[in-house]
Amino acid sequence: MSLGKIVVAIKALEDSQRQMIRETAEKLGYSIVFCDDSAEAAREAQDAEIIYSYDSSLGAKAPGLKWFHAASAGVDNFLKPGALPLDCLLSNSAGAYGVAVSEHGVTLTLMLLRRIPDYMENVRAHIWRADLPVKSLTGSRITVLGTGDIGGNYAKRVRGFAPECIIGVNRSGQVREEGVFDRVIPQDQLSEVLPETDILFMALPGTRDTLKMLDAEKIALLPEHAIVVNVGRGNSIDQTALVEALNEGRIAGAGLDVFEVEPIPEGDPAWTAKNLLITTHTAGQMTLVNTRNKNAQMFCEDLKNYSEGRTLRHLVDRALGY
Amino acid sequence: MSLGKIVVAIKALEDSQRQMIRETAEKLGYSIVFCDDSAEAAREAQDAEIIYSYDSSLGAKAPGLKWFHAASAGVDNFLKPGALPLDCLLSNSAGAYGVAVSEHGVTLTLMLLRRIPDYMENVRAHIWRADLPVKSLTGSRITVLGTGDIGGNYAKRVRGFAPECIIGVNRSGQVREEGVFDRVIPQDQLSEVLPETDILFMALPGTRDTLKMLDAEKIALLPEHAIVVNVGRGNSIDQTALVEALNEGRIAGAGLDVFEVEPIPEGDPAWTAKNLLITTHTAGQMTLVNTRNKNAQMFCEDLKNYSEGRTLRHLVDRALGY
Repeated sequence: MSLGKIVVAIKALEDSQRQMIRETAEKLGYSIVFCDDSAEAAREAQDAEIIYSYDSSLGAKAPGLKWFHAASAGVDNFLKPGALPLDCLLSNSAGAYGVAVSEHGVTLTLMLLRRIPDYMENVRAHIWRADLPVKSLTGSRITVLGTGDIGGNYAKRVRGFAPECIIGVNRSGQVREEGVFDRVIPQDQLSEVLPETDILFMALPGTRDTLKMLDAEKIALLPEHAIVVNVGRGNSIDQTALVEALNEGRIAGAGLDVFEVEPIPEGDPAWTAKNLLITTHTAGQMTLVNTRNKNAQMFCEDLKNYSEGRTLRHLVDRALGY
Repeated sequence: MSLGKIVVAIKALEDSQRQMIRETAEKLGYSIVFCDDSAEAAREAQDAEIIYSYDSSLGAKAPGLKWFHAASAGVDNFLKPGALPLDCLLSNSAGAYGVAVSEHGVTLTLMLLRRIPDYMENVRAHIWRADLPVKSLTGSRITVLGTGDIGGNYAKRVRGFAPECIIGVNRSGQVREEGVFDRVIPQDQLSEVLPETDILFMALPGTRDTLKMLDAEKIALLPEHAIVVNVGRGNSIDQTALVEALNEGRIAGAGLDVFEVEPIPEGDPAWTAKNLLITTHTAGQMTLVNTRNKNAQMFCEDLKNYSEGRTLRHLVDRALGY
């Protein structure tokens, strides 16, 4: 006897992860179908009980859907009106991206501090020089916006560089794990720490609450030598204000993997902003085997919870947005 | 009454460091002169007792020189025949560069793992993609060649990324500081760990002993997915063999800040080698304030030792080369 149908639409999964998912599903009595083609996934979604994918558009095509497990960490697209049936459960894969995204964040941070974009331009032109002033994580004051999986992993990674301090900022000011941050403050106190921030690292979910959290006023509080790194969601920064501050030299640099509009449109001033290091939303993705394994494990874990009527471990509060 | 003359020829020093050096020297009874111009430094060297500079050519111009304190970590140029009077003491600033050079090393490592050079080429062309397979420090097996200030600082910094293991390699296999490496082995056992090395980090001094330590034979022992990062001295790698291995895809990538000949000559195959990330010997230098401060402090410390007839703390064995 078969329970409902599971549709898995994640092209990046390897055989090993597919096999683990198939075995878990079949042992629990579900039928399962893997769709690497999006048209096929849309067809299969029509009578699905469970979908596991990063493609939020499948939700609207599945009237009987009971649970959508997002393969992504961010769920902004899943929260839009009509994206999912009203009583459908939503869970996400936030915990799968901490390693990949935090590591990308450290990479962007170090590249800015050590003037790598400038030096790479020199190397392209075979210009041999080594005299640009650089900065260091050692002794720096770091503020981390968002103390979840990504922010916490970033803090653990930069700790080894002996910064002066790492301050975490979240909604409540609550400490989630001891010893990761020197101090955790609520986001309404952010303005107090910005003037003493050398490195501002942002890993916020894309919710109404985080919209343009770094706006013109807050950017103006940062010291001139400060750098900003954002690997969370593009809309948590007022991008126009940031580009302006960069071009006027009011902050020293920014490393952004996420943008208000992606891909960045042709002609957008972001493409030519001074000291702006751009990566093309490459931080997360399922391009790291660690991410793929964890992602699949998290789905299997919650599939067991779901089938036994327990609360999903990776459940998203559809009102709060994370 | 004035003792001998000190010549300081280091353009990068700021007023704060110059003042500290001047005060230390004058308190001990030395006369001191700062030369930012190399012709002036050469003239002043003629009757110098002590020189503090990175310019090894000053040694041959100072017949009465008793002590040369190299502002650099590497002293290869100071060891060449005739570079210094026979009984002249030589000390170096190895301890001043650990932070800057190890941080540059982590930067190159992360850039290679996360395919930044490829992604930056895309960004230049406004190509928006995010699907290149990446790798991570997390779970990686790291081998560190050279367990001194730079190698040790590198190990401390990558530790926070949760690698599988960090193995240190040095001449004797002796552990200098507990808890930095998982294991330290003597360099004659290097071949045994290379097949299980994902990341090979090199921070060796330029001595006869380290010449082409990574040769064609050793490169062949590395797995295909391995990357090599060198921030020590260019001649500790057989550069021709490395470029060949890169072009043939026998290793995944290399990040080099140092080369057999610097600047890399026009037409040299290094400029176009596949997956070779080049920086122009920017790792050390006195471009970081932390380096400048430590450098000046180390000189002052040894100036006190010298004036009181004690052994220099940063003394170099001119036979061994470090």
